[in-house]
Amino acid sequence: MTLSATPSPAFDWIDGGGVTTPLGFIAGGTYAGIKTYGEEPRMDLGILGGEGPLTAAGVFTRNAVTGHSVTHGRRVLAQTRTVRGVIINSGNANTVTGTQGAADCERMAELAAGRLGGSDGDEVLVGSTGVIGRMLPMEKVERGVAEVTLSRDGGYAFARAIMTTDTHEKQAALRFEAGGRAYRVGGCSKGSGMIHPNMGTMYALVTTDAPVDAAWLDATWREVIDRTFNMIDVDMDTSTSDMGLVFASGAAGGKPVTDGHPAAAALAAAIEAVAQRLAKSVARDGEGATCLIEATATGAADLADARMAARTIVSSPLMKTAVTGRDPNWGRAMMAVGRSGARVNADTASVWIGEHCVLDRGQPTTVDLRLVSQAMAQEVVAIRVDLGVGGEASATAWGCNLTHEYVSINADYTT
Amino acid sequence: MTLSATPSPAFDWIDGGGVTTPLGFIAGGTYAGIKTYGEEPRMDLGILGGEGPLTAAGVFTRNAVTGHSVTHGRRVLAQTRTVRGVIINSGNANTVTGTQGAADCERMAELAAGRLGGSDGDEVLVGSTGVIGRMLPMEKVERGVAEVTLSRDGGYAFARAIMTTDTHEKQAALRFEAGGRAYRVGGCSKGSGMIHPNMGTMYALVTTDAPVDAAWLDATWREVIDRTFNMIDVDMDTSTSDMGLVFASGAAGGKPVTDGHPAAAALAAAIEAVAQRLAKSVARDGEGATCLIEATATGAADLADARMAARTIVSSPLMKTAVTGRDPNWGRAMMAVGRSGARVNADTASVWIGEHCVLDRGQPTTVDLRLVSQAMAQEVVAIRVDLGVGGEASATAWGCNLTHEYVSINADYTT
Repeated sequence: MTLSATPSPAFDWIDGGGVTTPLGFIAGGTYAGIKTYGEEPRMDLGILGGEGPLTAAGVFTRNAVTGHSVTHGRRVLAQTRTVRGVIINSGNANTVTGTQGAADCERMAELAAGRLGGSDGDEVLVGSTGVIGRMLPMEKVERGVAEVTLSRDGGYAFARAIMTTDTHEKQAALRFEAGGRAYRVGGCSKGSGMIHPNMGTMYALVTTDAPVDAAWLDATWREVIDRTFNMIDVDMDTSTSDMGLVFASGAAGGKPVTDGHPAAAALAAAIEAVAQRLAKSVARDGEGATCLIEATATGAADLADARMAARTIVSSPLMKTAVTGRDPNWGRAMMAVGRSGARVNADTASVWIGEHCVLDRGQPTTVDLRLVSQAMAQEVVAIRVDLGVGGEASATAWGCNLTHEYVSINADYTT
Repeated sequence: MTLSATPSPAFDWIDGGGVTTPLGFIAGGTYAGIKTYGEEPRMDLGILGGEGPLTAAGVFTRNAVTGHSVTHGRRVLAQTRTVRGVIINSGNANTVTGTQGAADCERMAELAAGRLGGSDGDEVLVGSTGVIGRMLPMEKVERGVAEVTLSRDGGYAFARAIMTTDTHEKQAALRFEAGGRAYRVGGCSKGSGMIHPNMGTMYALVTTDAPVDAAWLDATWREVIDRTFNMIDVDMDTSTSDMGLVFASGAAGGKPVTDGHPAAAALAAAIEAVAQRLAKSVARDGEGATCLIEATATGAADLADARMAARTIVSSPLMKTAVTGRDPNWGRAMMAVGRSGARVNADTASVWIGEHCVLDRGQPTTVDLRLVSQAMAQEVVAIRVDLGVGGEASATAWGCNLTHEYVSINADYTT
């Protein structure tokens, strides 16, 4: 489970692959009529399940106000790690909807259990994402669940159905061999605004056909989330419905993967690789974004400091607008690490934008700022800060720039 | 010094008054050529001082990366509470500028001391605000200090000179009587972006002609800052140069004000009234803002929770954009308090927008959302959340909406 010591196995990335690329999974999506904003109908109800029972692990938002789906998921995973799958609707978060909302959530789980060969709502996880404080239109949900087609090719439809303001679906899948056996890991995610994950994430779903020990899967998933989805930011706002789920079908065969299994390190690395790709997709597709910002903090006193510093750079509205303007205003990166809570020494810190060193051990350099501006016009804008305290910890975070479009999208959302 | 127990004295607000309204102060501002962005020359160097020595107190940014001016100010106030005044330039933060920057800051203090009848840079506080990581043009500073006209009418020029992206100067002044004597309190502030004060503030300067005990002034000032400038937010970013200074000239005469003095409660209330007015001006003039958001958290378990909840509402990009769109998406207020760290119970919480209750003890109400939208089209948009945990603490925070203009201003700032 120690990811940092993992050798890099050869991953075969599968173009267009997703949650149903691993064996033993079915999925689908439909337009139920829940999502009424936007110009044209977009799918808003998805179901992902196993051909048989699945081993599952999950992490959830740390927002103190949680959707009913989060309450339900926490309860289910506290009592079992064997589930049938998950049902997710977009367009309505079913959050702060009182006792009726809680009942609606349980009903959704029951309906999905019926489609997945289960007998009980406690065998199915639920996700609801969208506007907060509106009642779910349950007749539409009932009809949608009955209508959705579930198949081994349904990963794409599922990935589309869980989108809110996302401009495209986010999928990834790969295949690798370890211990003489082939395994697959796939995933999808959604999220474009209200993205400052803390513990959980927006929606991240990863599947694998490896058989796994439930405790190993849980520990691995938490570590992966901390290194991937917990290191992205769009707008500092933490959703009430964030969740990250991983499911293993075991359809690849063999003994359950746990510490000491010949595929353990490779499977952990594969799950992280898929999760990182999905996390970067979410950051890049941040509402209104036109580029990915990749911030790395090095020379930190400890890992917590490195993570705080890197995350604060990609979270800073002033850094994000500077990138929009291709403005080589690197002082904003120093301002951000300074307020992050990380230990930093401005007299010995250094800053790079792309390959250009703009602050060298506390002294501004004479680099041509036009070159720095060019480095900020790339598809990926790399910012690196050495915190100058002589430590050895480092961390990378991903975010996006802040544009006029973000304001437009969010100033006119519910209506 | 206990502000909450203060009776409300009769304050005579003085139209157009500022830092030189209290007796015993001189000030001025000039265009030295430091601030090169913008279409036309705007004043960028200001000096505020006493006709004699002043009693002073100050609070400074908690950002771990601090400008040289902050380092200087902390050192000066650690060794004395009697100073000649303060010199402030805008257009350049003199932050992360290495050893030369530190020397430049000391030189600025020395130059100003020469203009204020002092003999030593350690008698003068310094402020530098603007772009981070650029060297101060010291010949321009030298010339500017020599040229600035200092007078009893110079408060307006001073308030103009310290502006960066502010659209107008922020001044306030009042007169009151207590214990049979008349006192005046005046102030000015600046700040429009990089505003999420923490302990200190952007620039807040308050003056009074009351004679004061230095320790009383220090304690009063810290409490006032916590209730005013520490409760505003524009964009979550904490400046490296924030400072809040208060000066007392004693020119009104009488015994020094301290606990037990007949004017103590009234003077503390007057300082808070001026500071609150200035703080709200800063929030209202947030970069690109078109309205003031006033968020109140009630029913909190303690004061810290109430403050966190209120501040997070006015800090949330999604709440701020909802206000821009007059979008009655009150769920974002619940999302914000949920992530604030404050204790909240979504099943018993209530939310009001203006006078309209939209969530009543955990249940969404049937209020007409068009009325709520109208309440969001006001000059002051009031949002109130009862956290639903049965506590009695409350706090108010002030912020502004997030608009396209914020993005435009910050995407093109240094160049």
